[in-house]
Formats: sequence, C-alpha cells, structure tokens
Amino acid sequence: MSKKNLIITQYVNNNPNEVQDVVIEEVPLTIFLNGEQFITLLSTPFHQKELAIGFIFSEGLIAGTDDIKEIEVQNEQNLVYITLTNKSQLTKKLYGKRTITSGCGKGSIFYNILDSLHTTKIINKDTFEVENIAALMSEMQNSSTLFKETGGVHSASLADNNKIYYTYEDIGRHNAVDKVLGRALLDGVKIEDKMLITSGRLSSEIVLKVLKAKMPILVSRSAPSSLAVELARKNGLTLCGFVRGRKINCYSHPERLTKGG
Amino acid sequence: MSKKNLIITQYVNNNPNEVQDVVIEEVPLTIFLNGEQFITLLSTPFHQKELAIGFIFSEGLIAGTDDIKEIEVQNEQNLVYITLTNKSQLTKKLYGKRTITSGCGKGSIFYNILDSLHTTKIINKDTFEVENIAALMSEMQNSSTLFKETGGVHSASLADNNKIYYTYEDIGRHNAVDKVLGRALLDGVKIEDKMLITSGRLSSEIVLKVLKAKMPILVSRSAPSSLAVELARKNGLTLCGFVRGRKINCYSHPERLTKGG
Repeated sequence: MSKKNLIITQYVNNNPNEVQDVVIEEVPLTIFLNGEQFITLLSTPFHQKELAIGFIFSEGLIAGTDDIKEIEVQNEQNLVYITLTNKSQLTKKLYGKRTITSGCGKGSIFYNILDSLHTTKIINKDTFEVENIAALMSEMQNSSTLFKETGGVHSASLADNNKIYYTYEDIGRHNAVDKVLGRALLDGVKIEDKMLITSGRLSSEIVLKVLKAKMPILVSRSAPSSLAVELARKNGLTLCGFVRGRKINCYSHPERLTKGG
Repeated sequence: MSKKNLIITQYVNNNPNEVQDVVIEEVPLTIFLNGEQFITLLSTPFHQKELAIGFIFSEGLIAGTDDIKEIEVQNEQNLVYITLTNKSQLTKKLYGKRTITSGCGKGSIFYNILDSLHTTKIINKDTFEVENIAALMSEMQNSSTLFKETGGVHSASLADNNKIYYTYEDIGRHNAVDKVLGRALLDGVKIEDKMLITSGRLSSEIVLKVLKAKMPILVSRSAPSSLAVELARKNGLTLCGFVRGRKINCYSHPERLTKGG
C-alpha cells in the first residue's frame, strides 16, 4: 500500500522513546515512451497508470488517449511502458520542449515559459458558485485519509459546480493533479468544463498543466505565485487561492464566479 | 523585490470585494554551463548566484567553488553564466545522470536512484543537542518574513549546534536549500559538520542533496517519505521530521542526538 510502518525515536521534552510511526511511501516510477526510458516520477506507488497518462497529457505530449496505442504497467517494478500512435509527433514536441527544462521542484522537466504563448486561451463561459467551491474544498480535505495519517501528501480533485468526480493523493502535488487528469481521460470524462481542486501551492507549472487541459477554473487552499497569476490572467483561467472556510481569494477572471443561493 | 502587490477579488461569506494582496514573485532563472543552456529554475528573483552555485553543487556537478572558473549573474534578465574549470568532467557526470530524470515536483531533473550508492556514507561523529534543534527551528520559522506575508515560500538554514549561519527563502523548497549551500560555498564555510534545517517535506531528493554536501544531520518541521528515511538510514544521515515545539521525530541515526542540558 501507500504507507510504511517504522520504528522511530520520538523525543518529547528531550526524552527519547521508541515508537511506531507511519510514513508515506515514495517510489521512483519510470515511464518508457516508445521503448525509450523517458522520465522517472517520484510518487506514491498506486494509480501508476493514471499518473503516467496524466503526466504525458498535462505536459502536452498527447492530446488524449487516442494518441496512445498501448500501455503496460508493471506495478511491482514501478515501470510503465507507453507506445504512442504517432511517434514523429512526440519527437517534435520533445525537441521543442527540451530547450528549457525546470529543476525548480515544481514538477516538470519540460517547463517552457513559452508554453504560455502556445496555450489556447480558455473561452469556456460556465459559471461556478462561490459557496460550492468552499464546500467542495472541505469535502476534498476531509476525504484525505493519507494526509491525516502521514502528513506527507497532497490531494487533487476533479469537480463540477456540484460534485467531486475523483480525488487522488500523492507525495507530489503535481502527481496528484496528473492522476486526476489521467483517470478522467481513461474514463472519457469531459474535463474542459470542470474545476480542478488542489491542496498544493499554485506555481506556474500547475497553471500550465491546467491550461493544457483547457479547464476554466483552478482552486487551491494554498498560495499562488506571481507567475501563476500572470499566466492565469493572460489565458482566461479563473484562479482561486487560500480557499479556507468562508474566505476565497480570486486572482483572475472572477466573472466565472457567481453568488448562487 | 521578492513579492508583488496585486488587486484581487476577495470573497468573504460569498460577497466579493476588491482588495490589495501580495503574492510571492516567481521568475524562471536560466543557468548556462560552459556557454550552453543548462536548466531553468523557477524561483524567487533574489540570491540567484547562491541558487545557481548551490544547485550545481547539490546535484553533484561540482565539488566546490574551485571547479568554477567564472560566474556572471544578470539579475534583470534572470540569467546566470557559469564556466567550469574542467569541462570534460561535467560532460561525464551529466551523461551518467541523464539516464534517469525526475519530474516528480521534488526539485531535480537529474534524479538518479543510483546516486544513493555513489554517495559516501556520512562518518561525522559530532553530536547535536535535541533542545537546540527545536530552538533553531523556531528561530528559522520566526525569521521567515516572506512566508508571513505571502504564505508561499519555504525556508532553509545552515546551523551548528548553537547558531544559525544563514537562512534563505524561496518558492521552491529545494531552491531554499541550494541557496544556503551556495552561500556557504562562496564564503568558504565548512558544511560537512553542520546541520541543515528546512521547513519543507523530506523527500528522497532533499536527502540526496544533503548527502552530496556530506552533512551529518537534516531536520524539518514537515514529514519524510519512506525513500528519504531509507536513504538516510543506509548512508548514516540523522533525519529528524515534525520538529514542532517540544516534539521531534528522529527517523535515522539518533546516536548523534544528545539530551544536553
């Protein structure tokens, strides 16, 4: 499973005690694309198919599951083999993306600041009720059992104005988002009109992932960065942060938010 | 500066208000190695020299500042140009490291699980007082002004048993650690006998960075992963998590911790 029991030394008021503790499990999941070793994601060892598909989708390497010819997951070895239908296309995309890579700790080795320019502006006109956003955030938080046990995971959910479709947890906030997107793609659930909810901070790369998925609204209980806000404002994404209790900060395109009632 | 003021729409009990807000600034810092574009780190736009040097050091690309022939920082353009003394050595190291890369959101594009094998076991015999660790953690937390203002940064400090040498903040928890290491290298401060303090979660890559720096102890106020604990136990690193108030969890090599008093 996704956690490990350990005997640790716990100090309370400087006095040591051997106690049983539980930590979140982290494994290196290696993805092979068209037979070539592509990337290793450090992640919790479950829902590896969702993670692999969501990652190559939110990185812009596939437009959907139609671009996938075959996928084989070897859970015990933490390996995923993906064969794409159009190989030349991948090479072209990787070539473009490798010009700038990111090691910032925000989830992508293919980060390209120019991605924001290639991203199509979000034109979705759906509205979302402010009250529901707060309620959906609490629902996600309360369902996060791993966090309560280990304190070491982030959650992400796909939701519409009324209900949550999926919630996934992972040691990496980007992985949790990718798992949600991957599952939606596998189920053929439309995502262009949905809301992405995350417990993690809103960095530029999370915004780019959501823009790649053409989603109209991204909400988090944490803080955004200046670049995240810039990208959201420029590309028509509604960005909400610090969604806690009765308070919500909307950093871009509040026109999608309605009071409801 | 490291933060930006914005007008945002804040909802309290579903009622919108235009308010002034401040967010942490995120910029892409691009590092050139020997004239070639090497990597872009998404980070807060200050202490870019420390970040660049700390990053290539904690990634194992240089052993110290002696390996650096020349460094030029263009703060306005967010560019750092580094020329190394031994070019062939770098090519060899990159070749080995590129075999596995990480996009997990934990800070390194050169993550190689085998790094743990190449890492020399920490043999440092210094001890650290449990009471001081808690005190140093609070000192770091209290000095973090950016976090109080933006909620969007992580802190890292270099300390010995009694005092903090440096504290740096960044939007990326790995960047904060790299800035600390970079500054210490620039000042010629010995790090092999010091403690690294971080506010961020203890993933395997943070542990690998600290092992590369040959430091004996790594402490955090957050949770570790199973792989982080595994690497720490195997390589002789004292790993403490959840350092909060009077409680400390020690996950590996508690023999370095003394009650003091």
